[in-house]
Amino acid sequence: MDTLNRFTSLPGFLKRYEDLIIREIVPYQEKILWDQVEGAEKSHAFENFLLAAQKLETGRCEGTFYGMVFQDSDVAKWLEAVAYSLRIRLDAALEKRADEVIELIARAQHADGYLNTYFTVKAPDKRWSNLEEAHELYCAGHMIEAAVAMAECTGKTRLLAIMRRMADLMVKHFITENNEGFPGHPEVELALMRLYRYTGEADYLRLAQRFIDTRGSDFFTREREHRQWAIWSGHDDREYTQTHLPVREQRDAVGHAVRAIYLYSGMADVARETGEPALLEACRALWESVTRRRMYLTGAIGSAYEGESFTRDYHLPNDTAYAETCAAVGLVFFARRMLEMEKRSEYADAMERALYNCVLAGMQLDGTRFFYVNPLESLPGISGEAVTHRHALPQRPKWFTCACCPPNVARLLTSLGRYAWGLDEKAITAHLFVPGRLTLDDGAAVTLSTAYPAEGKLRFRFEAKKLPVNRAFALRLPAWSEHTEIRRNGSTAAYEERDGYAVLLGPFHDGDEVTVTLSMTPRRIYPSVRIGADSDRVAFTRGPLVYCAECVDNGGHVLNLQIEPESEIRVVPAEMLGGVATLRVQGRRLSDDGELYAYTRPQAEPCEITLIPYYAWSNRGLTEMRVWLPEA
Amino acid sequence: MDTLNRFTSLPGFLKRYEDLIIREIVPYQEKILWDQVEGAEKSHAFENFLLAAQKLETGRCEGTFYGMVFQDSDVAKWLEAVAYSLRIRLDAALEKRADEVIELIARAQHADGYLNTYFTVKAPDKRWSNLEEAHELYCAGHMIEAAVAMAECTGKTRLLAIMRRMADLMVKHFITENNEGFPGHPEVELALMRLYRYTGEADYLRLAQRFIDTRGSDFFTREREHRQWAIWSGHDDREYTQTHLPVREQRDAVGHAVRAIYLYSGMADVARETGEPALLEACRALWESVTRRRMYLTGAIGSAYEGESFTRDYHLPNDTAYAETCAAVGLVFFARRMLEMEKRSEYADAMERALYNCVLAGMQLDGTRFFYVNPLESLPGISGEAVTHRHALPQRPKWFTCACCPPNVARLLTSLGRYAWGLDEKAITAHLFVPGRLTLDDGAAVTLSTAYPAEGKLRFRFEAKKLPVNRAFALRLPAWSEHTEIRRNGSTAAYEERDGYAVLLGPFHDGDEVTVTLSMTPRRIYPSVRIGADSDRVAFTRGPLVYCAECVDNGGHVLNLQIEPESEIRVVPAEMLGGVATLRVQGRRLSDDGELYAYTRPQAEPCEITLIPYYAWSNRGLTEMRVWLPEA
Repeated sequence: MDTLNRFTSLPGFLKRYEDLIIREIVPYQEKILWDQVEGAEKSHAFENFLLAAQKLETGRCEGTFYGMVFQDSDVAKWLEAVAYSLRIRLDAALEKRADEVIELIARAQHADGYLNTYFTVKAPDKRWSNLEEAHELYCAGHMIEAAVAMAECTGKTRLLAIMRRMADLMVKHFITENNEGFPGHPEVELALMRLYRYTGEADYLRLAQRFIDTRGSDFFTREREHRQWAIWSGHDDREYTQTHLPVREQRDAVGHAVRAIYLYSGMADVARETGEPALLEACRALWESVTRRRMYLTGAIGSAYEGESFTRDYHLPNDTAYAETCAAVGLVFFARRMLEMEKRSEYADAMERALYNCVLAGMQLDGTRFFYVNPLESLPGISGEAVTHRHALPQRPKWFTCACCPPNVARLLTSLGRYAWGLDEKAITAHLFVPGRLTLDDGAAVTLSTAYPAEGKLRFRFEAKKLPVNRAFALRLPAWSEHTEIRRNGSTAAYEERDGYAVLLGPFHDGDEVTVTLSMTPRRIYPSVRIGADSDRVAFTRGPLVYCAECVDNGGHVLNLQIEPESEIRVVPAEMLGGVATLRVQGRRLSDDGELYAYTRPQAEPCEITLIPYYAWSNRGLTEMRVWLPEA
Repeated sequence: MDTLNRFTSLPGFLKRYEDLIIREIVPYQEKILWDQVEGAEKSHAFENFLLAAQKLETGRCEGTFYGMVFQDSDVAKWLEAVAYSLRIRLDAALEKRADEVIELIARAQHADGYLNTYFTVKAPDKRWSNLEEAHELYCAGHMIEAAVAMAECTGKTRLLAIMRRMADLMVKHFITENNEGFPGHPEVELALMRLYRYTGEADYLRLAQRFIDTRGSDFFTREREHRQWAIWSGHDDREYTQTHLPVREQRDAVGHAVRAIYLYSGMADVARETGEPALLEACRALWESVTRRRMYLTGAIGSAYEGESFTRDYHLPNDTAYAETCAAVGLVFFARRMLEMEKRSEYADAMERALYNCVLAGMQLDGTRFFYVNPLESLPGISGEAVTHRHALPQRPKWFTCACCPPNVARLLTSLGRYAWGLDEKAITAHLFVPGRLTLDDGAAVTLSTAYPAEGKLRFRFEAKKLPVNRAFALRLPAWSEHTEIRRNGSTAAYEERDGYAVLLGPFHDGDEVTVTLSMTPRRIYPSVRIGADSDRVAFTRGPLVYCAECVDNGGHVLNLQIEPESEIRVVPAEMLGGVATLRVQGRRLSDDGELYAYTRPQAEPCEITLIPYYAWSNRGLTEMRVWLPEA
């Protein structure tokens, strides 16, 4: 059962982000899409739809397509975020404007259902001829997601009808007419699965399956030979597009990290639906490859700028990481889908890790700027400047030509109910601890009140005015919580621990309370000795949050700091940075005698090192930053 | 006074390399140039000259140019090494073959003196039209160097006459006809200075000066607009070619490291000749930029594969370093030229660092394989494989299409007399301690016997049968030697210390001995706290040698090793790897529980860590390797 519409957030840590997105970011993105923000790079996304509509209506258009080949997807992701926003906060004016955009999209749709402004405006004779590069299916996928979200959240099905026509055209092309192919950038698979689940139309499942099943052939090589046109100066790297092997044989996460993680999410969607063991097995293996060998402590993935890609096991450089915000968003998607198949806390732990660290770091605290790349170490003078670090900006820029990340963050943070909770006939499951109210059947509900992640107290309260809630209540026991205390109506709760979840049996009556005390003692965390970049370093966590050191709190430098191995970690409530505590730990500050290499060990003087949550880094000017700090 | 022809090496550490080059590498390279090595990539270098000759003689040729646009320079560097080889060991057959090659070169020269097989065979109408990319002046420079070397070492001036005609043509084109331009890849400047010094012809100095003086304009941008042809898909990066500023205003070493260091060498040559303060000041500033902020501990330079370039201050990644062998050879050239202007041990220290570490590491101990890229950390499974590490091979390959490094090493290691000694009217100076005999005037000589760098005892013995040697004797006090004891004929020597040199006053009589005991106690060396990649790490040196750890000596892994901070460093004579001692130091081996991140600190058990000289790494199979090791 989908928990999206059953969830209403309550004041708390993530609610602040939800508000920021609804209040600031969704309207800002709208302006961007209309090219109304001075100084920002031109988007032209709505303009592309206007041109496409004009062309379909008059046979020609005044102007040309501008932007990335996947510019349409910015509109789709914005509409998806609008849908979630409208569910959270009614806004008649916004809804009206969204409806107008949808009407514009309708006008840009061909009579046969085809929708893609790049092809309509720029290359009408080239439809479906460059699946590798042209992101036609990717854009369709995002718009399908927006359509389903709009139907789910507002009940309005105008966009859904539009996108069903496009989906039906795809079914006709790939299944009825049996044309070979699958997308260069996966996304449509998971979108088709959303559409299938919402509409019940089996053709959409079949098409998602077809894309999954045929992937791994040399189709792109053959397509390239035939098509005689290109968008980028292509290279035949089959790992980049995850087409090096049939997906069921893939065991290592490779290539473009966002493509990979979207593909795995679609695979998990299909595996859940079909129950096919080989596909589930591949999903599990790829999950392990990602999270046990190729994931940063912050939940970021993608070690290399080159190809925005996964590289090799244990290659996790901190300062040159690609660690794209979108890829971390994708990891949340993948984790959620694995959870739907197997309720194991490993999935939810990673989902939480990615969300509270990499994803949130993607956004400036005031919501005005975004990181695409989220390194774990930043070196002013090198980061953003050296030829190897051009991507690793030390400060969030305003807006990018490729505007993928901000709307991806927006749609995730406005649909948290879907990730925080699980619900089926047997159990209500709290995966993440987002304060809010989850509506159950028969007018029942469960409400979580908490200052998490600032504090570790969770209070779940059941409402069941009519009937008791006859389900089990499962809650994740986070791996980071050394001791988790669970009480039920004041007494120690009886529960069974199952795959990292505490399962309390029902029924739950009106007013029943489950209170949880997670251990929020800050902890040192150590990297595998196989990670060359982190040798002899340590990082700090408290609850789900990873911490880092910045100059402003530490006497102007971070590279000269060492951690005292056995020292106490103090928790100091913060007056800034979202109200989450900072940490203080004893360390040493090394002297800098200006020599490049010296035979004498640098002098070390004791100092107190201040650590702030990673998500809040680079909010106070240009700074050195380090997550992994050397131990003295 | 040039010390090349005055020096004869004696058995010892570097003599082994000299022998290897003469016995194995020069003949092997000759076969490569003739395409006679099966399995090696085709060179076609001699064939290109044959084709050019055929074309000039018959108006057409059967076949086409093959190889890099600078393929001619492989022939030049080989001829230069042959010249030095013939000086060291007579080889009538080799000399005859070299003469035949020179006749072939003569046949490939145009009537007006022009020589470049790429242009003659492939683009006869495009001469001088693409100075940025086409390496025309670069190839000329290398061939001029070969010509001077051949004249210096064998007395034969056939190639010199050929190259003077080419140099005269260049003078005509750039000075007489006043055509604008300078080379994309500097090299011809230092070559012209060699030619000027050998011939005394002031035009060659003027031309070198012209190239130096005009560099830094937007000439390449304008050339690109006019030329309408390209060799590479060019990009307008003026730092890459060191044309971003007039050379006298350059203060930071930027761009392609080999180009940079060849340019600085040429600048130093000109500055020495003209005594111009502004040029000397630029040389000093660039020297400091290179050696005080952008140089690896091994004397390697060039932090990035992208553009084979310098990056930013203190950006010295170990595993992704470019650290090209040729650039370290170039650093030796630059250091030698700075020494010619200012006898300061800083220059010779860096020269020695680059020679004994990065340059020697470029060559397999058996002389059969070569590294172009010399990382300070190697990670099998990542190095040579991850997209970020494709250049950083963990094992030396056989031969490259771009064969720049092996002949560069060959010409350097067969002309060591030029780098080891300095000689002027007032002083004999021992910069490096290469065993051998330096001939002075009046039948006098000074001979150094030593097992250096295996041991720190140096015995200099004067021969002066006719007249006493009436010069001072200066010897470098290496920065790494904590206590240097100098005795003269058995007694503590009186000497003045001047800029890192001990200066002993003459006269020296026949049989006089100066014995030196350098402190060879192995030492820990610490990186600047500004080098992010080396935080909390330590490296080991003994004498001029930098050490590293490899798997084979250390229980199969290196990444899991930590150094015990205060432990003794034992010196253990080695039976392999060139006979230089290995080091043993107490450390800890960390456990690997297989977790990517863990809340428990890895278990540490005491162990003895074995370190070998860096130059000898990767001679015993695929291995993890680390120069900078974490301290426990």
